[in-house]
Amino acid sequence: MYKEIQTIIETKVIQKNFRYLPEEDVKQADLVWADAFVSFNTKAHYDYSHVKWVHSLGAGVDSFLFKKDWNEDVLLTRTICSFGQRIAEYCLSYILKDLQFHDQFQTSKLQKRWHPITPGLLNEKKVMIYGTGEIGQKTAEIFSSLGVDVYGVSLSGKEKEFFKAVFPVDSHFSQLSKMDYIINTLPLTEKTENLFDDNIFQQLSHVGFINVGRGASLDEKALLHALNTNHVRFAVLDVFSKEPLPEDNQLWDHPNVWITPHISAVTTPDEGVDRFIETLKNIENKNPLHNKVDVKRGF
Amino acid sequence: MYKEIQTIIETKVIQKNFRYLPEEDVKQADLVWADAFVSFNTKAHYDYSHVKWVHSLGAGVDSFLFKKDWNEDVLLTRTICSFGQRIAEYCLSYILKDLQFHDQFQTSKLQKRWHPITPGLLNEKKVMIYGTGEIGQKTAEIFSSLGVDVYGVSLSGKEKEFFKAVFPVDSHFSQLSKMDYIINTLPLTEKTENLFDDNIFQQLSHVGFINVGRGASLDEKALLHALNTNHVRFAVLDVFSKEPLPEDNQLWDHPNVWITPHISAVTTPDEGVDRFIETLKNIENKNPLHNKVDVKRGF
Repeated sequence: MYKEIQTIIETKVIQKNFRYLPEEDVKQADLVWADAFVSFNTKAHYDYSHVKWVHSLGAGVDSFLFKKDWNEDVLLTRTICSFGQRIAEYCLSYILKDLQFHDQFQTSKLQKRWHPITPGLLNEKKVMIYGTGEIGQKTAEIFSSLGVDVYGVSLSGKEKEFFKAVFPVDSHFSQLSKMDYIINTLPLTEKTENLFDDNIFQQLSHVGFINVGRGASLDEKALLHALNTNHVRFAVLDVFSKEPLPEDNQLWDHPNVWITPHISAVTTPDEGVDRFIETLKNIENKNPLHNKVDVKRGF
Repeated sequence: MYKEIQTIIETKVIQKNFRYLPEEDVKQADLVWADAFVSFNTKAHYDYSHVKWVHSLGAGVDSFLFKKDWNEDVLLTRTICSFGQRIAEYCLSYILKDLQFHDQFQTSKLQKRWHPITPGLLNEKKVMIYGTGEIGQKTAEIFSSLGVDVYGVSLSGKEKEFFKAVFPVDSHFSQLSKMDYIINTLPLTEKTENLFDDNIFQQLSHVGFINVGRGASLDEKALLHALNTNHVRFAVLDVFSKEPLPEDNQLWDHPNVWITPHISAVTTPDEGVDRFIETLKNIENKNPLHNKVDVKRGF
């Protein structure tokens, strides 16, 4: 992607000096030379002690912070753009696929069988969204506009627009048995690692589970058990603890698991550059930075 | 369904006499006895000269009117309820399935291949909806709320809310090449029979075609030709000239045709009874009937 980004930046007339490199070619000399570093990922050997600012081209910054030390003198910003819309449409597509019986009708079609079943409607359904930030809230906005009852789970349980109610993660278990679909949008932090474990899955009844947050928030064994005991009816997974998902991972083989290769919230090169330039201008003009990462919180 | 309807009506305390019969058991004596006849369909031998009112439990009334004579002294009403929402969700589910590459990702999953492709977004797409009535308009409302550019085609070309523009059916051809998806919601009348023929399909370029109107508005041979010449990329068909779709129909065999058994806009027994009782009250109270069929127009 770095070449595409170069092409776009060169059309923008920015009075700065740039070096464009693939992640694996970044040398210590580059990080000494630069005031700012813009990337999707970090590498273990990167030493940020000479840069003032690191900008993540993705929404998630766990690759920079999770189980790592971060020098708080270095500003860390992240990309906030159409992720919410993208993730909402991704989730909506799989929930509608379920309600509209796409697979059942396709099976009937291949057998040339006329077998009517009445699709479910969105306004009959309850969805629990984990994470009430930018992405969770946009998803809640779109789902609630279509008549879905949307509930949220967050650390604080603070009320947010478009959610009928938001529950604190520490005391939301009693709500889970009423839900039809569960969507995880949470960032990976020490508090969300392995959050979706046997304890949560046991509360669920025939739900559709969608993970668009981070793979490491999910205990994969617990999910497979929940699928086989019908606490979870199907799972749609876009993120995994190890990506690409290894060939020997059992999730590939489960008939009720849908797998997508971390595409639910991509940054296009255009969007990535626009957000980077916006952040650069805000820094230079000393405007407030709405995309500054709270390093302690981890997002 | 007549038994379910009986059960529901009996809970409603209506001071009328009812006979509940399957369509094939309705005798001339019943039609002489009754003031009103409530049904999804009609039969060739039904003689309505003694009833005052016929109420269709479906939205479409072509089974009563198309290529048939109707005694205009007999009031004909139809059901207007959640069809718009149902049809919008049906169409949205297939458009999102396409934009989100469900089939491609499922193929990759079965091969345990990690092969990222970036989904398309609704707000990059243009949809043409044929029919700007109750159903077309609700579909336009939902699609436009999600950022889709929605255009309409109607007999008159009269502007309607939620459509960026509405074109008269006689002069809309020049618009078709820009469209990504085509949705037909039109009722079957003499003017819409075989509307989707080679002339229309030739204007289209790689579109997704969705028919939730009536099967007889589609020239099936023309569609198959359009699929094989890539004017139409895929078709989603819920309605057919002959239902159930006969086993020897070629549509079953086409890999880019999705077939559903006329389920995109069902009337549930509860909704059907509610709308019937509402119409009954409006008739008795001499209120305006917004669901009265214009017999000449055919809907």
